[in-house]
Amino acid sequence: MIKIGLLGIGTVGSGVYEIINSETFRNSIDENITISKILVRNINKERNSKYPKDIFTDDPKEIIDNPEIDIVIEVMGGINPAYKYITKALNNKKHVVTANKELVSIYLDELSEKAYENNLGFLFEASVAGGIPIIKPLTKLSKINDIKEIKGILNGTTNFILTKMIDENLSFDDALSLAKDLGYAEADPTNDIEGFDVLRKLAILSTIAFKSKIELKDILCRGIKSIKKEDIIFFKKLRLKIKLVANAIKENNKFSSVVEPMLVNENSTLSTVKDAFNIVSVTGNQVGELNFYGQGAGKSPTANAVISDVVDIINKDFDYSLYKEKNVSSVNTKLFSGRYYLRISEDIKNSEVFNRLKKFNIKYEILSNKDLALVTEHIPANVMEDFIKSMDFKGNDYCYVRIDGALETMKSKEAAITII
Amino acid sequence: MIKIGLLGIGTVGSGVYEIINSETFRNSIDENITISKILVRNINKERNSKYPKDIFTDDPKEIIDNPEIDIVIEVMGGINPAYKYITKALNNKKHVVTANKELVSIYLDELSEKAYENNLGFLFEASVAGGIPIIKPLTKLSKINDIKEIKGILNGTTNFILTKMIDENLSFDDALSLAKDLGYAEADPTNDIEGFDVLRKLAILSTIAFKSKIELKDILCRGIKSIKKEDIIFFKKLRLKIKLVANAIKENNKFSSVVEPMLVNENSTLSTVKDAFNIVSVTGNQVGELNFYGQGAGKSPTANAVISDVVDIINKDFDYSLYKEKNVSSVNTKLFSGRYYLRISEDIKNSEVFNRLKKFNIKYEILSNKDLALVTEHIPANVMEDFIKSMDFKGNDYCYVRIDGALETMKSKEAAITII
Repeated sequence: MIKIGLLGIGTVGSGVYEIINSETFRNSIDENITISKILVRNINKERNSKYPKDIFTDDPKEIIDNPEIDIVIEVMGGINPAYKYITKALNNKKHVVTANKELVSIYLDELSEKAYENNLGFLFEASVAGGIPIIKPLTKLSKINDIKEIKGILNGTTNFILTKMIDENLSFDDALSLAKDLGYAEADPTNDIEGFDVLRKLAILSTIAFKSKIELKDILCRGIKSIKKEDIIFFKKLRLKIKLVANAIKENNKFSSVVEPMLVNENSTLSTVKDAFNIVSVTGNQVGELNFYGQGAGKSPTANAVISDVVDIINKDFDYSLYKEKNVSSVNTKLFSGRYYLRISEDIKNSEVFNRLKKFNIKYEILSNKDLALVTEHIPANVMEDFIKSMDFKGNDYCYVRIDGALETMKSKEAAITII
Repeated sequence: MIKIGLLGIGTVGSGVYEIINSETFRNSIDENITISKILVRNINKERNSKYPKDIFTDDPKEIIDNPEIDIVIEVMGGINPAYKYITKALNNKKHVVTANKELVSIYLDELSEKAYENNLGFLFEASVAGGIPIIKPLTKLSKINDIKEIKGILNGTTNFILTKMIDENLSFDDALSLAKDLGYAEADPTNDIEGFDVLRKLAILSTIAFKSKIELKDILCRGIKSIKKEDIIFFKKLRLKIKLVANAIKENNKFSSVVEPMLVNENSTLSTVKDAFNIVSVTGNQVGELNFYGQGAGKSPTANAVISDVVDIINKDFDYSLYKEKNVSSVNTKLFSGRYYLRISEDIKNSEVFNRLKKFNIKYEILSNKDLALVTEHIPANVMEDFIKSMDFKGNDYCYVRIDGALETMKSKEAAITII
C-alpha cells in the first residue's frame, strides 16, 4: 500500500484525488495506492461528501512527519510554507511531487539535490505547461542532444487576452476585464500580464534544457500591457499575430533568454495556439525541432501531470539530473535578432526618435506618422534594447515588439504598408 | 561498463553509433557505455574509418550469445531474422531496443511478455514517428486516462508526395518519381503508398492507447494511389488539404481504426504538417488533446529515439505494460462519420451511381458532372464503405475521401462549389 499526503485541495488537488480514485488508474498500477491525509487551512469547512471525514487535517505534521506517508503531493502554491513543508518531507524520506512553479523556479537545484542525497524523487511535471508532458521528455532530450532553443506559449491568460484584442477589437483593459469575468484571470493579474508566470516556467525549462542553473534574473521579462488597440490594427495589416512568447537560445556556452510579446506569422504554429492552450518547441542537434501542444492549465490536465510523476515514483523512475553548476552564461538578448515594430505616442517628438535611431544606426520604414509607428530593419536584439533604454520612455507611451521569422510576409507587404 | 551489440549499421545504426560516442551523451550518463560489436552482412566491405576494425562481425552469435553484451539494438528491419535474433537475445538475458515497426506491430505482445518474464527491457520508441517521443508518453497517459482518440500523420513519403501534388500540380506518378529521385521513397514504394507503413504504426499506437492487442487486420487501410490531379483541383476549390491520416477512436469497449486519405481544413493543425514531419494527436479523458510534432524519420531523429530507450534501460525504467488480452472489439469504421468527397471516372454511368446512392439513402451535392464528383451529406463511415463495396469499382476509376471536421468551410463555400 502506497500512502499519499496531499498539501492543499484546490482545483488541482481535487483533480488529483479524482484520478487517484479512478478505475482507469487503479487498474493500471499493480500496487494499492491511497490518499490518506489532506492538509487544509480550515478543517471545519463543508466539503464534498466524496471525501472521507477523517482525511482532512490542519496540522502539516500529520503529513510531513507521518511515518506511514510515502509520497507528499504539494498543490498549495506559493513559496511559504510550501518550501518549508517540502524540505521537511524530503528530510523525512518522503518522495515529493509538486505543481508549484514559483517554488521550483527558485529551489529546483537545492530540492533536487536533497532528494538525490536521500534517494528520493522530487518531481514537478505539473509546474510547466499543465497537461503537456515536457519536463520528463526535455530531461531525457537534454542527455542526448545539445539543446539549441526552447520557444513557447506558456500562459493561457495572456493568450486569451491577446486573442480577444485581435478577434473582437477589444482594448487591453476590456479584454482583461472579460478574462477576469470568465475566470481566466485572477483578481490580481500581475503575475500573468507582466509575464512573471511565464518567466518562472522558462527558468525551469532553460535550467533543464541547458543543464545549468538559470535564474530568474538571467531572463529579460516584459509583459503585454504596452499593447494597444492601435497596435493590433497595424499587426493585422502586417499579417502578423501578437503572442506572449518565452524564448531561450544557446550557442556554445552562452545563452539569451526572454519573455516578451512577439509578432509571429499568421501561418506559423505559434499563431494557431488558442486561448488556454500552451505550446513548447524544443530544438536539439540530434532530434531537430519537436513541438508539444496541449492544455496548459485546468483541473484535469494539471492533475494528469501530477499523477504522471506519481507513476514515475512508483516505478522508481526519477532521474537525478542536478543543476548546481552554471555551465553557461547569460549574454542578455545578444543572440536574438529580428525586425522590430515600434510605436511611440504623440507626446514624444518624432524628430527626437529619428535622431536617436540614427545615432544607433538603425534603419527603418515608417508605417504611420500620427502615433509614430515604424518597422526597423533586421537588427540584433541588444541594439534595440539599448536604443529603448536610451530613450528613457515612460509607462505606456511606447510599444516595441520583435518580429519573429516573418520577413517573407513583411517583404511582400512592405509596399502596401508604407502608404498607410 | 555497459556493452551494446548493434544488429545492422544502416542509416539509423550509424546515427546510434554517433550519439553513443558523442560528448553530450557521454557527459550525461554516469556509467561507461560502448558499442562493442556490430553485425553486418559483408564483413569485407570498406567502412568509415571511425569504426574500430574488430567491431564488425557477420556472426550474430557474437552478439546474441555473447555473455559480455548487455543491450542488443536491432536496426536491421524486416521480420526475419530480426525476430529470431531478438527472441534469442531476450532468452539470453539481454535487453532489447528496436526501431523495427514491422516486427513490433506483430510481436509486441509476445516479446514484451518474454522481456517481462526475464526482468528485461524490450523498448521500441523509434518504431513510430521517428524522433517524436510518443511510445513512452502514450504508455504513461494510458495509465491515467481513458484514451478516446489517436490521430496522426505518420508517413513522410506520402506526405511529401501529396504536398508536391498540391503545391506543384504534379500527377501522382510524377510526384512519386520525384520522391524516389530525392530519396524520400524507396525503389519499391508499396509499403508507403499503400499505407502499410502507417498501418503498422497505428497498430502499435492503438495497442498501447487502448491497452489491448490491436492487430493489423482490425484496421481498415487505404493508400493514396486513387488521388488524381483532378481531385486536387476540387480539394483546392473546397479549401481542403488531402493528407494520409491514421485515426483510431474508442467508445466504451468498441473501437474503429483506419489509415486512409482524409480531407482536412486548410487551417487545421494536420494541414500544416510538412514533408517528412509527423504529428500524433492523443485525446484522453483527463489530459484533453495533446499534440506531438516533429521529424518522423531520418538518421539523427530516429537514432535519438533509440538512445532514449537505451537511457531508460540504464535507469531500469521499463514499464511492464502487457497487451495479451483483447479488451476491446473492432466495429470496423462504425464510430467514424463525416461528409465524403466522391469522384468517379467517366467509364461508369452517372445514373448508376445516383441510383445506388439513392438505395443507400445518401444525399449529396454535385461538384461536377463530367468526371462525376460530389460531396455527400454527413453520414456514418460504414454506410459509405458499404456503398463503395456494393458498387464493385475497379482500380483507379474512383476516389472517395472523408472530410474531417471541415463542415464550416464546406458550408460557406457550397454555393460557389455547385456552379463548377
